[in-house]
Amino acid sequence: MRTAFNARLATIDDQVLAMARHVRTAMHAATKALLETDLHLAESVITDDADLDNRAHEVEESVYRLLAQQQPVAQDLRFLLAALHNASALERMGDLVMHIAKTARMRYPMAVVPTELRGIIVDMGTVASQMVANTAVALARQDLTTARSLRDMDREMDRLHRELFIIVLSPAWEYGVQAAVDITLLSRYFERFADHAVTIGDRVVHVATGASTEPVVPRQVNGPVNPR
Amino acid sequence: MRTAFNARLATIDDQVLAMARHVRTAMHAATKALLETDLHLAESVITDDADLDNRAHEVEESVYRLLAQQQPVAQDLRFLLAALHNASALERMGDLVMHIAKTARMRYPMAVVPTELRGIIVDMGTVASQMVANTAVALARQDLTTARSLRDMDREMDRLHRELFIIVLSPAWEYGVQAAVDITLLSRYFERFADHAVTIGDRVVHVATGASTEPVVPRQVNGPVNPR
Repeated sequence: MRTAFNARLATIDDQVLAMARHVRTAMHAATKALLETDLHLAESVITDDADLDNRAHEVEESVYRLLAQQQPVAQDLRFLLAALHNASALERMGDLVMHIAKTARMRYPMAVVPTELRGIIVDMGTVASQMVANTAVALARQDLTTARSLRDMDREMDRLHRELFIIVLSPAWEYGVQAAVDITLLSRYFERFADHAVTIGDRVVHVATGASTEPVVPRQVNGPVNPR
Repeated sequence: MRTAFNARLATIDDQVLAMARHVRTAMHAATKALLETDLHLAESVITDDADLDNRAHEVEESVYRLLAQQQPVAQDLRFLLAALHNASALERMGDLVMHIAKTARMRYPMAVVPTELRGIIVDMGTVASQMVANTAVALARQDLTTARSLRDMDREMDRLHRELFIIVLSPAWEYGVQAAVDITLLSRYFERFADHAVTIGDRVVHVATGASTEPVVPRQVNGPVNPR
């Protein structure tokens, strides 16, 4: 009985991990589509998001059935509630990635990102990809060091977010209102993506230790939304 | 035993409902602070958000304990998982309200919203307040008609969101880049607020009927984020 139960927990673990891998691939592709003005790649990111939504729904169903049929307590219960949270966070991260791809598609064949800002957007994409890769490592190995590293990476994302706003709002900005609006939203998507990754890291710590230094309800962490 | 269990369910229900009332009051105050350039009111919204975070944390703890100590199934289990979701959604709605108040504070003593756009922002604030009021009614009375009405209200919010972008991105825009960036973010806060309210309505329906027409994982509903 216990073995069957453990097998079902492991399946849920695999489902969440597969979602993290999906989001990692999608973030890499969306940033590439944005920076290389690649319509085909943008379209594929947008189309594939439906798979992620379905996966999140499957995790929720699996958790619900397991809670209803078994009486998990302590760490197993924490694990299942964390899986519920993490699937929801990853589904939302996928939405944000899709919005990045939609921005690329909306302006095609024009580039969204002015040359001057490409470096920062490249960095944001790199940090975002690393963060979701780290959530996958933290989830797969219950690796608390990696889980906790996400807060440091989020601080780096917040720094990039602020740097971008300083440039957009400087008197020297020469790309007009539409580019400013596009960059504002893009920057917000990356920043929110990072916030969600942090909440997954926090849950990994919570499942392993039963402790949380922060309320474990998803929330904005560190990130001033109006960083100006 | 069952009576004690029901009393604990009722307490959780009250906690979530109190959160909805908090968010309704905060949304009203934040929109007023924004439109009337009221620094004191903006500050109070920002300060009070910590209470909401604590309430969300309390709901999560209560749900966790009840799941661990009892073996709720069927509707009770759906109710508890919905409470977990709804507390998280309301906490996030509170964050978005706080960001609106922070925008007002950041520009004080200047007004954030150009006169031409005040009407749309007033409407967004009204729709947002009505939506969270409706989530409270739907939660308190398990009122499915009210719960389902949230999707229609969300469509109205999306329409206002698009209308705002059309004005900001028109060649006639005369308020500069900073105002465009501020309005872009504000509009996004209202639009996301509405999306979260929809997910609460969907959960109310799910708890009452066991059915969901949509994946019940929180997701962007209807709302094009780049509505242009």
